[in-house]
Amino acid sequence: MMMAAWMARCGINARIIDKRGTKIFNGQADGLQCRSLEIFDSFGFADRAWKESNHMLEMYMWNPGSDGVIRRSDRVPDTPPGISRFTQIVLHQGRIERFFLDHLKKHSKIEVERGVLPESLEIDTSKVEDNSAYPITVKLRHLTDEEATPEQSKTSKVGDGLFRSNLAADDVDDLIRKSKGKEGTAEIVRTKYMVGCDGAHSWTRRQLGYEMQGEATDYIWGVLDIIPITDFPDVRMRCAIHSAESGSMMVIPRENKLVRLYIQLTEIIPDATGRADRSKITPETILKAAQRIISPYKLSYEYCDWWTAYQIGQRVGTQFDAYTRVFLAGDAVHTHSPKAGQGMNVSMQDAYNLGWKIGLVVKGVAQRSILKTYQSERRRVAQDLIEFDHRFSRLFSGKPAKDLMDESGVSMAEFKDAFLKGNLFATGLSVDYSASMLVAKGRSSADQGDSVIGKQVIGKQELAANIKLGMRMPSFKVLNQSDARPWHLQQLLKSDSRFRIILFAGNVTSAVQKTRIEKFCAKLDAPGSFLRRFTPASRPIDSVIEILTLHSAKRWDVEMLRDFPNLLHPFDKRVGWDYNKIYVDDESYHEGNGRAYENYGVDKEKGCVVVLRPDQHAGYIGEIEDVEDLGAYFDGVMVEANKA
Amino acid sequence: MMMAAWMARCGINARIIDKRGTKIFNGQADGLQCRSLEIFDSFGFADRAWKESNHMLEMYMWNPGSDGVIRRSDRVPDTPPGISRFTQIVLHQGRIERFFLDHLKKHSKIEVERGVLPESLEIDTSKVEDNSAYPITVKLRHLTDEEATPEQSKTSKVGDGLFRSNLAADDVDDLIRKSKGKEGTAEIVRTKYMVGCDGAHSWTRRQLGYEMQGEATDYIWGVLDIIPITDFPDVRMRCAIHSAESGSMMVIPRENKLVRLYIQLTEIIPDATGRADRSKITPETILKAAQRIISPYKLSYEYCDWWTAYQIGQRVGTQFDAYTRVFLAGDAVHTHSPKAGQGMNVSMQDAYNLGWKIGLVVKGVAQRSILKTYQSERRRVAQDLIEFDHRFSRLFSGKPAKDLMDESGVSMAEFKDAFLKGNLFATGLSVDYSASMLVAKGRSSADQGDSVIGKQVIGKQELAANIKLGMRMPSFKVLNQSDARPWHLQQLLKSDSRFRIILFAGNVTSAVQKTRIEKFCAKLDAPGSFLRRFTPASRPIDSVIEILTLHSAKRWDVEMLRDFPNLLHPFDKRVGWDYNKIYVDDESYHEGNGRAYENYGVDKEKGCVVVLRPDQHAGYIGEIEDVEDLGAYFDGVMVEANKA
Repeated sequence: MMMAAWMARCGINARIIDKRGTKIFNGQADGLQCRSLEIFDSFGFADRAWKESNHMLEMYMWNPGSDGVIRRSDRVPDTPPGISRFTQIVLHQGRIERFFLDHLKKHSKIEVERGVLPESLEIDTSKVEDNSAYPITVKLRHLTDEEATPEQSKTSKVGDGLFRSNLAADDVDDLIRKSKGKEGTAEIVRTKYMVGCDGAHSWTRRQLGYEMQGEATDYIWGVLDIIPITDFPDVRMRCAIHSAESGSMMVIPRENKLVRLYIQLTEIIPDATGRADRSKITPETILKAAQRIISPYKLSYEYCDWWTAYQIGQRVGTQFDAYTRVFLAGDAVHTHSPKAGQGMNVSMQDAYNLGWKIGLVVKGVAQRSILKTYQSERRRVAQDLIEFDHRFSRLFSGKPAKDLMDESGVSMAEFKDAFLKGNLFATGLSVDYSASMLVAKGRSSADQGDSVIGKQVIGKQELAANIKLGMRMPSFKVLNQSDARPWHLQQLLKSDSRFRIILFAGNVTSAVQKTRIEKFCAKLDAPGSFLRRFTPASRPIDSVIEILTLHSAKRWDVEMLRDFPNLLHPFDKRVGWDYNKIYVDDESYHEGNGRAYENYGVDKEKGCVVVLRPDQHAGYIGEIEDVEDLGAYFDGVMVEANKA
Repeated sequence: MMMAAWMARCGINARIIDKRGTKIFNGQADGLQCRSLEIFDSFGFADRAWKESNHMLEMYMWNPGSDGVIRRSDRVPDTPPGISRFTQIVLHQGRIERFFLDHLKKHSKIEVERGVLPESLEIDTSKVEDNSAYPITVKLRHLTDEEATPEQSKTSKVGDGLFRSNLAADDVDDLIRKSKGKEGTAEIVRTKYMVGCDGAHSWTRRQLGYEMQGEATDYIWGVLDIIPITDFPDVRMRCAIHSAESGSMMVIPRENKLVRLYIQLTEIIPDATGRADRSKITPETILKAAQRIISPYKLSYEYCDWWTAYQIGQRVGTQFDAYTRVFLAGDAVHTHSPKAGQGMNVSMQDAYNLGWKIGLVVKGVAQRSILKTYQSERRRVAQDLIEFDHRFSRLFSGKPAKDLMDESGVSMAEFKDAFLKGNLFATGLSVDYSASMLVAKGRSSADQGDSVIGKQVIGKQELAANIKLGMRMPSFKVLNQSDARPWHLQQLLKSDSRFRIILFAGNVTSAVQKTRIEKFCAKLDAPGSFLRRFTPASRPIDSVIEILTLHSAKRWDVEMLRDFPNLLHPFDKRVGWDYNKIYVDDESYHEGNGRAYENYGVDKEKGCVVVLRPDQHAGYIGEIEDVEDLGAYFDGVMVEANKA
């Protein structure tokens, strides 16, 4: 869905197929981390998730005391304060799909084609470097209604009144699979690019013959989505409960009074092949396990929304693409346990990283070589995720140490420490992409040899200490110069596939600074400048690279038309000047002072220039005079738009 | 639409008819004041208005200098900081209708029946005091398609590509009037209650024979909704421009790059009867007048979304209801100039005041006598509005004084002063309803003899200094005790027709205070208590009067199940305990500290009890022990639910 969203926003002719007959309505993934919400906001629908979801503010740890009875031992913030304008929230995957479906409908004609299976995949390797070729051939089969209905929906809970009432009104229409008249037929599709987001058992990955590396696990867990009836005092908080002898449980409070419980099933023992007998696992057996863990508190339910059980190892794909034509994303290249609420997030973020790159390459705006950065950027994230999950799962599944001498048990202090360290990673905000044509920084030993180096421009990190090259731009409040409205700067960074130059113009009431800005604009506006070369002559000057200006003078001392060159607020003969390009770091009437220069670590007098990629990650930082370096950065990425 | 929203939320069988063939798509009213947004939020759709609208933060005054040339003279905040979590925004009336239409669809089967005219109205006065009677008979005529299409839409701009692109996607479907198969037929409707929201030329008012009192005006104004092309520096700010010789203009920046201009047409002179020749007024003549006022700046446009002209006096209806059976609201009982952005707001607030009263009376929950408070509460608001508008219009339309000696001119200092004073009124937050069975306070000389006194309970205002009896409850942030989520307290006050008791429980870690709370709950929970008497025995205990608790102890020192009587978090056998009733005034992780007790002026140790009406206005304040007074308040309002 994330990939489809990018295709919609880039205006790419794309199709999305799913073997399921309908969308998801309940259960499945549910955690949404800060970075995912920031991304949703860049598409315009974070507010819907924020409104419908449960907000998780605090994380509790329950451990056995010396008497073996569980008691509350720690409370920590669920999301570290100050790192994002969002906090972690919980909402089931079906609603996330709804937001994406509505977004697709608003911006494109792309529809999810459901009940469709791929049957064969061929890549014509002689054509993979030809940008205009369609080297991929896929045979699709449109399933019959019978084939497209998964077992679980055949014994459907739709008749349950409570389920009906928990179903969002705008989802009801999707309960029934719409016939397209193609059922039972086959179809040949020729395409330039293909992305397999087809899960842990990825058909696409198997066609490519790629392996998953990692290890299996002995742990088997049950999952219940219930409305709990309980005297456990912290059931509306996220809780990690380690019982003395009965295993562990994670409590995730959800929307609509639901609570998700991840419950260790210590009584289910895998056989010699490592697989467990699934037939023994029912909601009743899972509940019984939960009751043992949470004892002496009582737990029962009248309503269960969804349940499942899983046994998952931590594995990462060896390769994330074939010929930078066929790509793998999400569970198709990384599997791990769901308890840290990472799966949906990291998977969506894979596609968020890849989508604009494919979009810009297909449109002929960017060079094909940038597609290599998908693997170099995302494979390391997957490895970090697996490492985090491995450590966290082991600590969470282990029996608590009875005392300091109990070396076979897990130290609860170590568990807390791992949680706190993992928590920043879990927000998705610590992702730091390595050096490449898209990130103008030096190579690092952490690159593990997988970074892609383009033209050797190196940005000046010291000019914006808190906008880290390779990381997403943090957000602080700024004011529109023309109407004084406060915006989080990130709200201006829409996912519309444009690169952005953030011109920190500094103190524009100083004559020296004003001259620097005028020279900068004159160079960018000149015929043959990189801005002119990469922007089609027939299109507005901000259609490929948008310049946003943030100055640090007092708002009342500055006027847009008087104090800034036209390039910074372009004129259109139908709608006049653009009043949404120039912002100021100043006090607002109702929402305080964002102190953006201070928070970004940018000099208030002299400013600097920052390039943001279409995914809000910082690609380049330089002085206002460094127009040559700035141009070189884009030379390494873009394709000339105006060749005769 | 506001009335229909209440009917939907109260579950009342209601119909809403409109002689127009379609909804409104552009133009008309556009200003939304803080209080209207608070009300929208109580229905759940303020976020949609907030997101789509233009936010107005600052108000500029432009006056002639000694050389006669206009210059910027003052900047003031458009909304006084600190009084609401919302600020003034601007969005055209068609979108507001959309939000209401969607709300109706979500909560009821009520649909706006368009192209329907009332033809006769009869009231059987012998039955008006019989609560179960249907004393009103209305004859309706369903118009033919030709009749239902207003002149302006016949020369439709729908073909204009820009108009199409400015039209919201979810409005497109309403462009065409849906045939109901009733066109050209008549229908007799018998109803218990009827509300005429039928504008300045109200058919309903004419049937009742009621007068409007007030005076006409000589001023004629033009209105343009355009995307301006201009070098005027403040076109994205709200501006009041007084030119030296060419009249005045108000600039209202709007959504979608639009700007609304209210332009004084000094060259159009009314005839002896006071009416102006409308045929002389075109967008071109209005633009020319604007150009003269804004000179030496240039102003033109390529795109005009809507335009009109008006000449309106300030008038108030003598009576707002007939037999408390037929009511008038909005322009039907108060007309005034649109420039202060009050019309849509005060009109919606009329209906917001009336809707729950009719709803509760029809449902048999409240006594019919509360309907008298509609006139006593809203007529004074209308009078205040007319007085404000009269003063403001005169100062805005007058020619600026050349100097202190120029007594025929308007003093710009006086204009600024009037604006600042009017600004608080304009937010809708200064409305203060007088003493009645719904507001337990003493009579005031400001009541002008129109207040309605019920049982003589007088609340103790001093226990909550900043929750004013008769005024809407201000909002500060509090945390949910069970999950630590911050909420603006007002977000908990949904428009669902329930009265609410806000139990400021004080410091519940003190044994003394805990005992007071226990006694309070024991009394309310006892058989025969007012809470039991007014709640149907078959319904949940919070279905008529909801108790919300806000305590002032530290969150970590308190547990819901351990520290609060069950009445404050009722148990349901399907869904367990209610975790959304108990809140705490404490520090949040991400959104600061609301300091609610301090801000409400309530003692942090001892607390108090506040009753809020379904419209969030404070009705009663007392000590936790004053259960008798509390019961007496409800005795004056409610009907016994459980008579044998």
